[in-house]
Amino acid sequence: MGKLLIVGTMAFDAIETPFGKTGRILGGAGTYIGLAASQFKIDSAIVSVVGDDFPQSYMDILNNKNIDLTGVEVVKGGKTFFWEGKYHNDLNSRDTLATELNTLADFSPVVSNDYTDADIVMLGNLHPTIQLSVINQMEKRPKLIVLDTMNFWMDNAWDELITVISKIDVITINDEEARQLTSEYSLVKAAAKIQEMGPKYVVIKKGEHGALLFHKDNIFFAPALPLEEVFDPTGAGDTFAGGFAGYLTEARNISFESMKNAIIHGSNLASFCVEKFGTERMVNLKKSEIDTRLTQFKKLTQFNIELT
Amino acid sequence: MGKLLIVGTMAFDAIETPFGKTGRILGGAGTYIGLAASQFKIDSAIVSVVGDDFPQSYMDILNNKNIDLTGVEVVKGGKTFFWEGKYHNDLNSRDTLATELNTLADFSPVVSNDYTDADIVMLGNLHPTIQLSVINQMEKRPKLIVLDTMNFWMDNAWDELITVISKIDVITINDEEARQLTSEYSLVKAAAKIQEMGPKYVVIKKGEHGALLFHKDNIFFAPALPLEEVFDPTGAGDTFAGGFAGYLTEARNISFESMKNAIIHGSNLASFCVEKFGTERMVNLKKSEIDTRLTQFKKLTQFNIELT
Repeated sequence: MGKLLIVGTMAFDAIETPFGKTGRILGGAGTYIGLAASQFKIDSAIVSVVGDDFPQSYMDILNNKNIDLTGVEVVKGGKTFFWEGKYHNDLNSRDTLATELNTLADFSPVVSNDYTDADIVMLGNLHPTIQLSVINQMEKRPKLIVLDTMNFWMDNAWDELITVISKIDVITINDEEARQLTSEYSLVKAAAKIQEMGPKYVVIKKGEHGALLFHKDNIFFAPALPLEEVFDPTGAGDTFAGGFAGYLTEARNISFESMKNAIIHGSNLASFCVEKFGTERMVNLKKSEIDTRLTQFKKLTQFNIELT
Repeated sequence: MGKLLIVGTMAFDAIETPFGKTGRILGGAGTYIGLAASQFKIDSAIVSVVGDDFPQSYMDILNNKNIDLTGVEVVKGGKTFFWEGKYHNDLNSRDTLATELNTLADFSPVVSNDYTDADIVMLGNLHPTIQLSVINQMEKRPKLIVLDTMNFWMDNAWDELITVISKIDVITINDEEARQLTSEYSLVKAAAKIQEMGPKYVVIKKGEHGALLFHKDNIFFAPALPLEEVFDPTGAGDTFAGGFAGYLTEARNISFESMKNAIIHGSNLASFCVEKFGTERMVNLKKSEIDTRLTQFKKLTQFNIELT
């Protein structure tokens, strides 16, 4: 089986949406990526850090999905990364109410020996220096390195971000961030500029408006599945990335065609993530539900026009 | 050949975008709808009104596309409807600088005898009373009545709008207007409510984010083609509607499957409209360009996932 190495936060989240409010629940980019990727027939491991306040029951949720957690450092006496946010009524924007880095502040990732030969590395949103450290620990160049990042690092660690972007194959980024990174308003032009910076493939996430994949002159688009109600968008982007990387790890085929399928699988899984608070929907998701919704994705987008 | 009756404004537009500024140029919903629909093998006619300041050269542009203009009233001594607008830098929003109704203020549409048996009627954005008057002049119920409208009529002619909506088959409307019409934020819920108001098919236009088609439990989505540069969005929605109605008139087949193709053709034509100021791109558009871009639409959206 293909091996996927995931680097990303494991965290406590406290979330408020127009539909309700949670206490501290399981969150973090690494968690969402891992849960999504676990839907594929792959070996996967997470590299992360938590405090000893992180409950065993949360570890078990990931262990039960056959995710290797030997690379998760538990800091004695340390506290786990905490994020608190409140979504606006349209769910498209949110205010961050609290960010406590805690053990994440001094995180120095260590890739376990079993995963230094991973086929694919999925670098979740973290300081680019941490992302780079993981790349440097790989004993051979992975077949594919996928990187997720955000505007915060453009504002605060530009040089390090540019360095790590030069060493990866796929970047996933949202539309506003793609514009900030390139000073181009047109996403077509922005994606072309980003490809000159290193990544051969550029994935631009547009939230409820879908996702675009760019590679040379090729463009592919996947919509978000129109839902009756979006309940909590937290983790949707990471779930998308996890589905994307998980599919490619199982497929063992890196091409524009397989990336198209990876985009669809990522979009499909993200459509479940937003239906309940936090990770709840992803933890209990069944294969049959995934297949049913893939069929909906086909019906949503496939047409048959004969050119005359 | 199928017969399409188009009702909509013929106008002077003055447009400013970040890329430049026009004087008074040819515009109007009826004009854009007609130009788009003329790409199909159909008979078409426009019902509209202009003043005698409307140049013969503009009439000739439409005549040369084989559009019947006997239903265009020319008011002696009257002035043609004029709209002036300025787009913001992102081209997604605009300020209206001037709206002079002129001859449109007293417009009483008259459908010529040749078109009272049209197969499809496309009611462009106008006062709902004018739209209703056209429906009432049809000697037999058309196979399909398509209506475009906007928030202005929700604010200023609610009852008349609800009446005309109850008598049509397809409504095309943008996302914010669908929300205003139904008080539902979710477009899935909004589309369901609109279907209860009359139309069996609901098309929700999301501008650069594509268009959705709803019919019972079926949903179809077409993206806007990602372009290097959008030059002038004026008329894109009307061009979409014209392509939609024109395709269905040629196809002579009203079904969800044929509507999917109609949505793709409409999106395809709209992608040309925005490439130049006003109607310039549509007037000179070649069949071979349309076919090439339809191929791009296929590549953009079609994938092949086998369910296991």
